[in-house]
Amino acid sequence: MTLTQENLVFAVLKGSKAVRDNPRTTSFDQVLVSITVSGLCGGDLLFKDNDMVLGHEGVGIVSAIGAEVTRLQKGDRVGWGFLQDTCGNCIQCLDGSEIFCPDRKMYGHADFEQGSLAYGIVKKESRLFKIPDELSDEEAPPLMCAGATVLSALSNVKPTDRVGVIGVGGLGHLAIQFASRMGCDVVAFTNSETKSSDALSFGAKLARDKIGRGLDMVLVTAPAQPDWSLYIPLLAPRATIFPLTIGPGNIALPAMPVLLNGVTIQGSAAASRKVHLHMLAFAAQHGVKPMIQRFSMNKEGIEDAFIALKEGKMRYRGVLVVPIEKRLA
Amino acid sequence: MTLTQENLVFAVLKGSKAVRDNPRTTSFDQVLVSITVSGLCGGDLLFKDNDMVLGHEGVGIVSAIGAEVTRLQKGDRVGWGFLQDTCGNCIQCLDGSEIFCPDRKMYGHADFEQGSLAYGIVKKESRLFKIPDELSDEEAPPLMCAGATVLSALSNVKPTDRVGVIGVGGLGHLAIQFASRMGCDVVAFTNSETKSSDALSFGAKLARDKIGRGLDMVLVTAPAQPDWSLYIPLLAPRATIFPLTIGPGNIALPAMPVLLNGVTIQGSAAASRKVHLHMLAFAAQHGVKPMIQRFSMNKEGIEDAFIALKEGKMRYRGVLVVPIEKRLA
Repeated sequence: MTLTQENLVFAVLKGSKAVRDNPRTTSFDQVLVSITVSGLCGGDLLFKDNDMVLGHEGVGIVSAIGAEVTRLQKGDRVGWGFLQDTCGNCIQCLDGSEIFCPDRKMYGHADFEQGSLAYGIVKKESRLFKIPDELSDEEAPPLMCAGATVLSALSNVKPTDRVGVIGVGGLGHLAIQFASRMGCDVVAFTNSETKSSDALSFGAKLARDKIGRGLDMVLVTAPAQPDWSLYIPLLAPRATIFPLTIGPGNIALPAMPVLLNGVTIQGSAAASRKVHLHMLAFAAQHGVKPMIQRFSMNKEGIEDAFIALKEGKMRYRGVLVVPIEKRLA
Repeated sequence: MTLTQENLVFAVLKGSKAVRDNPRTTSFDQVLVSITVSGLCGGDLLFKDNDMVLGHEGVGIVSAIGAEVTRLQKGDRVGWGFLQDTCGNCIQCLDGSEIFCPDRKMYGHADFEQGSLAYGIVKKESRLFKIPDELSDEEAPPLMCAGATVLSALSNVKPTDRVGVIGVGGLGHLAIQFASRMGCDVVAFTNSETKSSDALSFGAKLARDKIGRGLDMVLVTAPAQPDWSLYIPLLAPRATIFPLTIGPGNIALPAMPVLLNGVTIQGSAAASRKVHLHMLAFAAQHGVKPMIQRFSMNKEGIEDAFIALKEGKMRYRGVLVVPIEKRLA
């Protein structure tokens, strides 16, 4: 089966003008994926009112492949994330850090007619990851952005490190699981009683208890910048801080303790492909799974999910499931 | 010759109460140094009004050694810097990063009766560095703090990196020399015509010319925090920023470009001993030398030097020379 225009039966749930005006043209290295489940991410809120198909945490089944596709076959279960494409030839790409390619195409900034809040998508073969059998269709999507984002930050963590996770939400609840299964001692910071209890089950201890020695790494996953005067005294020498929440405003920390304690503030974004591969393998092997809240992949389901996300009520990651009858052949 | 109280003939230039009340007691691993030249550093301004002997960029001649001293001999030329002592047993010390030892003793916070604005000092043997023959008495002191500080930041630079130096002063003029001799392409940022001309002679190109590709590393050596909106567009992906100037206030950068370009903001302080050793060897081998302004080590000389420093008129690093007749035997 080769790709033809007829295969590109996108469920344009937003009625996107971009899709109507730019029917996807295909080339031989491309794959048509029948989407089964999409995640919903804080990043989607940033682009909600743009003329584009939303969604960047997708999982589905390969339903057609181009002539030059060699790795994937029809029937394979695949997923994809935030990063759409890169140049492949610059220092960043060649160094395994393609997420920082100056010519990258990121979700929200290119390929507006392609998104995971749909019934089908066309992707280059090289941009699709096989989903391990251990992860279900519904568990896999949140790993494709939230999971990859926290694993990017944890790429250089040492199992002997003490890791602080500020905020227990979509990113935080995965960060706790990944870091604790990496052998790290994980401390969760949350004011919510329910989330405190959940954080313990994910593998963390709580910050309100005596935490002992300092934090070697801190992942900021809360929606707002934290009050650093509270956290600076908790850091170990040479701690690394990852501010992971994308948004406007400044990252601002007091200069003196940052310098005198050799603190690193590390910008990080999801995620180069090598991170995805490590992340999927590790999640499968160690049982890292998002706690999910299910919605239907239709107008009402999407709207309900966006409301839960915006109001901070998602526990902990929303997924939109394509009804069986809507799935592509 | 063993150390006795009589050897500790400090020229208490500040008339320090700390010295009068706490005559130095000696132990067998200690060395009496006859100071020949001291540098003056921005860091000294922070402690100028404290009850302590000032100065932490010292060079002198070993004039007496304790019974357990094995590496140094009378007559050796030695220097020392900002860090006075560390525990030697913690993770940071054992990892070669003793400057971040939680139990470190830093200049201004311990050993108030010891400083380099004096005629003599007693130091532990392990805290003294032999000065290579290629460096004169007057050139060596500014390397002991300013030189070590910039080399700490440059410890992981790659010769293929493009390095920005914001501010051409005591730290900046050494950073330009070190980085350019490491093979880096160095871009200096200064508004002064004189300093622009000097920066070229130190080995930099100027930011006002077209600089081409982005900066992989930026050393902030200017006294105030820069306007980051001007510098963020000049960064290469995954650039590292070192805010080296110690002072109050926040380090504040816009969150979005830091995250999306994987920028690192790296706290750094001068300097672990391994950095000093590398720094002295590299400076000697490659002819890195501070441009100095000479003052006499007496009350008037010290006061003049502090004024030049405070008014930003030092070109580029002040040194205070102990008159021959004041030197210890």
